[in-house]
Amino acid sequence: MKIKDIGEFGLIERIHAKAGRSSYPVVIGIGDDASVLDVGPRNQIVTTTDMLVEGVHFLRDSIEPFDLGFKSHAVNLSDIAAMGAAPAQSFLSFGLPPDMEVETIDTFMDGFMEVGEGVPLSGGDTVSSPHGWIISVTVIGTSPAGRVLRRDSGVPGETIWLCGPVGDSAAGLSILLGQTTKVDEQGAQFLIKSHNRPLPQVRMGRILLEAGISNCAIDVSDGLLQDLGHICKRSKLGAELELESIPLSSPIKELASANGLDPYRWALRGGEDYSLLFTVKPENEKKLLRVLEKEEIAAVPIGRTVPGKGVRVFRDGSEVETGPDGGFDHFRERP
Amino acid sequence: MKIKDIGEFGLIERIHAKAGRSSYPVVIGIGDDASVLDVGPRNQIVTTTDMLVEGVHFLRDSIEPFDLGFKSHAVNLSDIAAMGAAPAQSFLSFGLPPDMEVETIDTFMDGFMEVGEGVPLSGGDTVSSPHGWIISVTVIGTSPAGRVLRRDSGVPGETIWLCGPVGDSAAGLSILLGQTTKVDEQGAQFLIKSHNRPLPQVRMGRILLEAGISNCAIDVSDGLLQDLGHICKRSKLGAELELESIPLSSPIKELASANGLDPYRWALRGGEDYSLLFTVKPENEKKLLRVLEKEEIAAVPIGRTVPGKGVRVFRDGSEVETGPDGGFDHFRERP
Repeated sequence: MKIKDIGEFGLIERIHAKAGRSSYPVVIGIGDDASVLDVGPRNQIVTTTDMLVEGVHFLRDSIEPFDLGFKSHAVNLSDIAAMGAAPAQSFLSFGLPPDMEVETIDTFMDGFMEVGEGVPLSGGDTVSSPHGWIISVTVIGTSPAGRVLRRDSGVPGETIWLCGPVGDSAAGLSILLGQTTKVDEQGAQFLIKSHNRPLPQVRMGRILLEAGISNCAIDVSDGLLQDLGHICKRSKLGAELELESIPLSSPIKELASANGLDPYRWALRGGEDYSLLFTVKPENEKKLLRVLEKEEIAAVPIGRTVPGKGVRVFRDGSEVETGPDGGFDHFRERP
Repeated sequence: MKIKDIGEFGLIERIHAKAGRSSYPVVIGIGDDASVLDVGPRNQIVTTTDMLVEGVHFLRDSIEPFDLGFKSHAVNLSDIAAMGAAPAQSFLSFGLPPDMEVETIDTFMDGFMEVGEGVPLSGGDTVSSPHGWIISVTVIGTSPAGRVLRRDSGVPGETIWLCGPVGDSAAGLSILLGQTTKVDEQGAQFLIKSHNRPLPQVRMGRILLEAGISNCAIDVSDGLLQDLGHICKRSKLGAELELESIPLSSPIKELASANGLDPYRWALRGGEDYSLLFTVKPENEKKLLRVLEKEEIAAVPIGRTVPGKGVRVFRDGSEVETGPDGGFDHFRERP
């Protein structure tokens, strides 16, 4: 039996089965946005890691080294944000072709450090790679002892909030891949930048945790429907989304309109926006609204958690068909 | 200018220059066996990461998956040991060819977990890799707040101690590469196992730190001369080694003799033994000897730290020429 026969999910299950019982002081092991380690009375340690491979995750000629550095750090910072933790240090391991220009690495590092906003690079590894560029990033954050935003902490009756855009990254990718025809240069650049330089919602995550506003969050990396589905599955609940509550940028609306597409398709299924999705109990809504105003952060309610399971989507009060497994294959053919 | 023009050292310098000032709470950033993060009054966090690339660090056909799993975890655990920390959790990111057999990963994981002796795998990433296997491991350990074995904490007048073998791994590799002719199967298997399943000196490292016996250690990954050279450079001191104090296994002596080689060449220059090299002040020697006896750990004094710089090697009282840069190219041509 080969890896392609069991897929990524099957492979992770198999590795997980051999991972050793995740015992104290490992509070969270495999299965959330990041791992949590208890290290004493004050703080706990929140750790995430990601690998990017040239030819699989990116093509060297189609992304600027600055953007690649920016994004490879951003996706890990976003996982830390989804736990409500504060990034403390990063690690970067490089597999590099020996004939790569040194300036490429300089520019990559500039992007990597820019999105980190002061998080120091504390270590890593540099190795030769004959077949292409490999990037492995680890980010360690800290959160107050015993407290973290978890995927499995949602309960029915909460409001679902979204901080950050959804769909812009996928729309930008469609332009880069030539799948859509852009309307105007400025709008196209906005969408492409959303894809190449996603902004991790680190500040929102920390505030949610520190102010005790939310217990449950995930970052939108696979797509809104799928990531909300992760919360539902882990928290053993269902969710109802109101499509018209999901904010769309002007460029995504214009691009969709010009290409005869429904922009909500990108908003629900498009990944790599690295927005923050979180749930809030009714009694904490006022506190959240005060914080959003004071900190000048934009976040909006887009639905609610309910008993049951799975994500249901409503548009102007009518349910929309979203397809099996939280997928969205039939969205455009809705009745 | 290309990466091959500036080499790994030049590349690291360049990345380091952009890494951000390693400020509190990052106690140690780039430059030691692992990074140290202050997280509160009780513990600190010690982190290391390594990347292995197929075709560069290993050939898939010449190492068993079990051994590859064992070794890829061992080299990181060894870095944690060299800080005197206790491993707490590991992370494993895989780049894998889709046509790889699933059982290969199962066996890899068995080796990975075996050397960890209970350290849980807490996360990672699994991605497709078209050109070969990529392995990126991160290990996080803990040590008491404010205390760690550092490369730069040696002072003149200390005894240099070695815990674990040196040279066996390089001798084993010489057999695997067909550079030497093996004497007997049992001896060959001993040396090859030293190369494929090196044992990180985690227990020794923790004891040295917890009992306050040493402040300064490094693991022997590049070779005894080179790694002792790292301590000398970072601690701004010199070192004198007594060749006859360095213990050699029977198989390495027999292999060297049968092939007309000097076994000390492997012992001084061979890497990948993952032994622990540490310095001890005269007033702590008695405590060390008591601990070694009580815990049944084998470690031996092999030299001393002195004012000045660089490593000098003596054999039966006469200095041995070791070549420039701590290398050992002229060892066999000594007068």
